[in-house]
Amino acid sequence: MKFADINQEMIAQLEAVVGQSFVFTDAQTRNDYGHDETEDYVFPASVVVKPGTAEEISTILKLANQWNVPVTPIGGRTGLSGGALPIHAGIALSTDRFDKIIHIDEQNLQVMVEPGVITHNLREAVAEKGLFYPPDPSSLGSCFIGGNVSENAGGARAVKYGVTKDYVLNLEVVLPNGDIIWTGANTLKNSTGYNLTQLMVGSEGTLGIITKIVMKLLPANNHNILMLVPFYDGAQACEAVSRIFKAGIVPSALEFMERDAIDWTMKFVDGVNVPIKDGIEAHLLIEVDGNYPDVLFAEAEKITEVVEQFNIDEILFADTEDYKNALWKLRRAVGEAVKSNSVYKEEDTVVPRYELPMLLKGIKFIGDKYGFKSVCYGHAGDGNLHVNIVKGEMSDEAWKIEVPKGIREIFELTVSLKGTLSGEHGIGYVQKNYMDIAFGQTSLLLMKGIKDVFDPNGILNPGKVLPDYLQS
Amino acid sequence: MKFADINQEMIAQLEAVVGQSFVFTDAQTRNDYGHDETEDYVFPASVVVKPGTAEEISTILKLANQWNVPVTPIGGRTGLSGGALPIHAGIALSTDRFDKIIHIDEQNLQVMVEPGVITHNLREAVAEKGLFYPPDPSSLGSCFIGGNVSENAGGARAVKYGVTKDYVLNLEVVLPNGDIIWTGANTLKNSTGYNLTQLMVGSEGTLGIITKIVMKLLPANNHNILMLVPFYDGAQACEAVSRIFKAGIVPSALEFMERDAIDWTMKFVDGVNVPIKDGIEAHLLIEVDGNYPDVLFAEAEKITEVVEQFNIDEILFADTEDYKNALWKLRRAVGEAVKSNSVYKEEDTVVPRYELPMLLKGIKFIGDKYGFKSVCYGHAGDGNLHVNIVKGEMSDEAWKIEVPKGIREIFELTVSLKGTLSGEHGIGYVQKNYMDIAFGQTSLLLMKGIKDVFDPNGILNPGKVLPDYLQS
Repeated sequence: MKFADINQEMIAQLEAVVGQSFVFTDAQTRNDYGHDETEDYVFPASVVVKPGTAEEISTILKLANQWNVPVTPIGGRTGLSGGALPIHAGIALSTDRFDKIIHIDEQNLQVMVEPGVITHNLREAVAEKGLFYPPDPSSLGSCFIGGNVSENAGGARAVKYGVTKDYVLNLEVVLPNGDIIWTGANTLKNSTGYNLTQLMVGSEGTLGIITKIVMKLLPANNHNILMLVPFYDGAQACEAVSRIFKAGIVPSALEFMERDAIDWTMKFVDGVNVPIKDGIEAHLLIEVDGNYPDVLFAEAEKITEVVEQFNIDEILFADTEDYKNALWKLRRAVGEAVKSNSVYKEEDTVVPRYELPMLLKGIKFIGDKYGFKSVCYGHAGDGNLHVNIVKGEMSDEAWKIEVPKGIREIFELTVSLKGTLSGEHGIGYVQKNYMDIAFGQTSLLLMKGIKDVFDPNGILNPGKVLPDYLQS
Repeated sequence: MKFADINQEMIAQLEAVVGQSFVFTDAQTRNDYGHDETEDYVFPASVVVKPGTAEEISTILKLANQWNVPVTPIGGRTGLSGGALPIHAGIALSTDRFDKIIHIDEQNLQVMVEPGVITHNLREAVAEKGLFYPPDPSSLGSCFIGGNVSENAGGARAVKYGVTKDYVLNLEVVLPNGDIIWTGANTLKNSTGYNLTQLMVGSEGTLGIITKIVMKLLPANNHNILMLVPFYDGAQACEAVSRIFKAGIVPSALEFMERDAIDWTMKFVDGVNVPIKDGIEAHLLIEVDGNYPDVLFAEAEKITEVVEQFNIDEILFADTEDYKNALWKLRRAVGEAVKSNSVYKEEDTVVPRYELPMLLKGIKFIGDKYGFKSVCYGHAGDGNLHVNIVKGEMSDEAWKIEVPKGIREIFELTVSLKGTLSGEHGIGYVQKNYMDIAFGQTSLLLMKGIKDVFDPNGILNPGKVLPDYLQS
């Protein structure tokens, strides 16, 4: 689609809507809001706007339709699929000012929050009231809860507690035409019409701009046990994962890290040092949580019995809060560590968890075939494996030509194992042209039809989710 | 919309598709498949068809589009909102022959099942493998799992374990145009495109016909404690509900029954007799479950402490399996018992749970205003209150004129408390013209737009979910 360019008159009108101090055309701001954490992409918008209310967003979207100018909603800029990149320039609409926790409802165990609240801050605020918001994406210290909803973010605790979608009850959304709606009700159950709430979750800012979020909370629990298990064989570590569930345990985290992931990260972050023996190929980081320490000890013992059936080194139990924090810091920093090490591409493969060993072997095989190295880690309990393909010594040409072929094969393998392209990062900009692997033409046309119902002029976050040939 | 009538040539073609023995035009069969459990409605279709494969359904839907004949998918006929009523005659498409549990995947804790499997049978089959499918609608002995998905059914265990939607990973669906798709992947996490799976769940057979369901399972737990708490004040029983959660307990069931509900049901079912003192207005039936009896005793003790702060009679602990079964039989039979007692209408109100006392008082107030009596019971832990409005001595005219006004006010109250029309029964045929209370015109037009994308000719289950003025 050919969009109109932003001109001075439009800038003036945007200033009239949100106030002059919240409209930015300087190169620095445009650059800052032109990237997230997706590889090294930068797409500066023509103007960055920071509205303060849903009504202001409504007015901006109405103008954008009149002007035929694209609008890209932007949260914490921690995305890994490029969902918030203003690839067609136009207006970058930041939710920075939607930073309020409106109401923690201790009676109903719910919270109403604006999309620009940092996930960690939300978790801390509800924890102070004895409540628990489980989803904890690795970027939780800087990502926005609105972005979590838009990408249906997961994190380490999803294996027991579910992903973001499982906590969203109701959303206030500004639709592309400027209308403001609530998608549902503030209830735990809802069988009232089509599920607009869940349609909006994970739609990556292409169907509307979220301005309020009502989420359910759980009562807090107070105890956990964290253990790190070193495996001499990476595929065995993957196998152990489904055995733990078969033993009747649902851990609160079950994370997988290849040797390189842990080695590189220890070099990257300060103050975390785990002694690793030669020959160790992978680690599982396993947590159980709950209210009753005795139960946790029993569960940790059962887990120990399961993993000891494999070829492992001594299990490390994190016996202090500091040690626990250090191990989590290590795990959460893997993505950044790999990124700092080399140019890379990250895939967010997900399969039924028993298929993990097959997936891991297949990824290595495909890497050998196309000449690339990969570092794998992720939420093994969910079957969600992040595949970091590192450029290293690869030629620019091979990186450009061979790697996409390899990625396509990885995704084909994933889908053949009954998995799919993305477990928690979304499709966004970088994976959209692989969507044909996960969906046939009929399904893609349904999605395109839905997009057209919500956004007939295609002005909201164009160029995302759907493959290029289905973009308006 | 004016649909075409079924003629002999069409019948012959349907027989060619599914075989002569699976096409029924006799009055008895048409009548049998012309009703579910919704009040006393009967809408016989012109023909009842029982296909055996997704491909046969595909062919039938293609023909229906050509013929301009409506198709109503029908499961176990236990629905309470009339979602499966062939209100425009045409073809009643029964899923009776889709009765196979295709695969219980013990490695991944998943099951692939056809929609015509009875929910109870599914739960038993996975239980034999040490696995647990939690949703247990009261009709579980006769409802189909496909109907559960289509209505997003809940049940007593939803309060801890979630509703049907929380277990659906992937669906094979025949779309209205005859195309067959899978909506997602067999993974616990999925951020790949718009969530067609969750759009299909709860869409009441208006967007496609489900032919395979992939669901997640949990490891089974082995212990539970069941207690029945009699309250002298019904509103206090409702208040106790949110106090239990505030105490940090998530019970596996937390059910509310008004005095009339329990009295009428004891007369209706055999072999269940609970001594109830004069002045008792309501009961809470509370269950905790898990793997560790000590934990359950501790939780039951905490619950006891909470409820003893209210005006209650002695708590009854169900100390044998037989007694537990009897109490559950009592609870599950309430709907039928009320139905046997009088002509009635059932509303499926749901609010944030702390608003329950307000909802209950409001319902009684509105009943007094319009001259009707109501019997209330339901899943109080979810804020889901079934309101049975009984005709009793009311005149036919008052029943017809006054009751709908009262229902509208009940729903307005529900929505003003941040709740909505249906927690688990769906909108179907009987509640569609109240949809304007829960949704503004913009949201309803979005839903209508989605319906048109999936079913441009409006042949699949017409006259459901959306209000009459938005029906094609």
